[in-house]
Amino acid sequence: MTERVSIGIDIGGTKVAGGIVDVDGRITGRLRRDTPHRSTSPGVVEDVIVGVVEELMVGLDPEDVAAIGIGAAGFVAADRATVAFAPHLSWRDEPLRDNLAGRLPKPVFIDNDANAAAWAEWRFGAARGETHLVMITLGTGIGGGLLFNGEVLRGRFGIAGEYGHMQVVPDGIRCQCGNRGCWEQYASGNALMREARALVAARSPIAMDMVARVNGDPGIITGPLVTEAAKEGDRMAIELLAEIGTWLGIGMANLAAAFDPGRFVVGGGVSAAGDLLLQPARDAFAKQLTGRGYRPEATIIPAHLGNDAGLIGAADLARASVE
Amino acid sequence: MTERVSIGIDIGGTKVAGGIVDVDGRITGRLRRDTPHRSTSPGVVEDVIVGVVEELMVGLDPEDVAAIGIGAAGFVAADRATVAFAPHLSWRDEPLRDNLAGRLPKPVFIDNDANAAAWAEWRFGAARGETHLVMITLGTGIGGGLLFNGEVLRGRFGIAGEYGHMQVVPDGIRCQCGNRGCWEQYASGNALMREARALVAARSPIAMDMVARVNGDPGIITGPLVTEAAKEGDRMAIELLAEIGTWLGIGMANLAAAFDPGRFVVGGGVSAAGDLLLQPARDAFAKQLTGRGYRPEATIIPAHLGNDAGLIGAADLARASVE
Repeated sequence: MTERVSIGIDIGGTKVAGGIVDVDGRITGRLRRDTPHRSTSPGVVEDVIVGVVEELMVGLDPEDVAAIGIGAAGFVAADRATVAFAPHLSWRDEPLRDNLAGRLPKPVFIDNDANAAAWAEWRFGAARGETHLVMITLGTGIGGGLLFNGEVLRGRFGIAGEYGHMQVVPDGIRCQCGNRGCWEQYASGNALMREARALVAARSPIAMDMVARVNGDPGIITGPLVTEAAKEGDRMAIELLAEIGTWLGIGMANLAAAFDPGRFVVGGGVSAAGDLLLQPARDAFAKQLTGRGYRPEATIIPAHLGNDAGLIGAADLARASVE
Repeated sequence: MTERVSIGIDIGGTKVAGGIVDVDGRITGRLRRDTPHRSTSPGVVEDVIVGVVEELMVGLDPEDVAAIGIGAAGFVAADRATVAFAPHLSWRDEPLRDNLAGRLPKPVFIDNDANAAAWAEWRFGAARGETHLVMITLGTGIGGGLLFNGEVLRGRFGIAGEYGHMQVVPDGIRCQCGNRGCWEQYASGNALMREARALVAARSPIAMDMVARVNGDPGIITGPLVTEAAKEGDRMAIELLAEIGTWLGIGMANLAAAFDPGRFVVGGGVSAAGDLLLQPARDAFAKQLTGRGYRPEATIIPAHLGNDAGLIGAADLARASVE
């Protein structure tokens, strides 16, 4: 028998990424689409998913595909079938698994995208051998996955790991989840973009290089553009990544107080900034950890699988669910 | 063979409570001492523990005592032998188990006091049957214990559950742990006492009944005194318990985002305030929970074992460790 592949789909706030994944976690084919805006109907996102899967399966023998795994940026309920809530998508109590199962030729498995990423990093990436892992995916928001002793910790109702919505600032910035002061409003790609746009719009002296870079138009600034500028030495971009990294480290110190992991793995699009983000995070963590000096400290390392962790993990969890 | 008992000791920031505990979690004898101030040497606390155990064992046949369990308000390292750090006590990398083992006639087991309380509530109290429990003990500070599927979640280095030291207010009130803005500076017996004393010292109009109650001396105000006053209708005391309860609820919403428990059990001395504390906590939790309306919500209930949970749990964990 040939080694079978599985298909993984990672649905984030801005991108739908799909891939064919082999048993060793390697991606042998991939596709990418924009995520429909959350004002569109839930069915539109499902159409995109089905389209991506169908296109990926062109040229594959369906017999060789074990299962299809979906990692979604939302609260996947304990039944592993329903997306209860998705801050950045239009799903509310959406029976995603059954809706897709009727349209796809293979067993469908769904999980939170960050759970999938945590699983992938533990199986194939930066967290191999770690017994107590906190995964943080910095994209549009903050995704979270917890893996203890090789098991995804999903919580009583299936939605553990949503620490992006822990309040870090009382009466702080309004979040898409409805609350104020959520961690992801201070440490995420959205935060990076929002702050960069505000500085450019204000024509802050420190923003002058960025103003030139975007011809004065704050509306075209994205997180990746800020990261690229930082890597080229743009001082405002470097400062903003450090701000976000500092908030990242403070939040990680909070999580360390609660969970006491051995390792934090930081993935998602913003993690492409590397040490421009992670060094300030490590510095803030070291200054903020309760009991510091009298306890072993968790390490903070970048994801090895980058933006691919979600789709690799979704595919591998799907395979594991049918084996 | 007679059913054996075990001895449990709960060491908090202000009290050392000891008890003889039977296999059903019942206390058949008890003792209480003040905790030596944290400026005294670590050995003084150990002397108190040894004294309490020896006094409890008077009249017991040593053969009937299975083990001695210590629940300590500190970071018990993964080796379950060392107290790495104790914010409210003088222990720093203290080899507590071995120090005590040489002076006591039975096997000694140590754990964090809130882990012990969580275990007791799960075995004998308010959390029976719950698979995902967050235990919060409100005493001098906030103690925390996590129990998932009948196992205490201790973390990679043994010190999970220290969520009292999650930062809830940037640049907030200084904590004994060295940080600022820790949750327990806003929701604990210390917070209750501090705020009541400040209002009395300021002779705030709302404090006038309390001023009379303490003959104008803020220094004699304690948490239990505020709780007692609240139960008798003192408006300032009721407001302060509601403030603390509100912070309690906000922090629980943060923990629900991260862990997604089925139940929060609130114990410790401050929980004696009952619904004067817990109703504001439930209200704040309901307003602050991310995804509210699109998820099942954890229940928030008082501990059944009250202040005894720590010593009962320490005794029962000790017994379990030698069986």
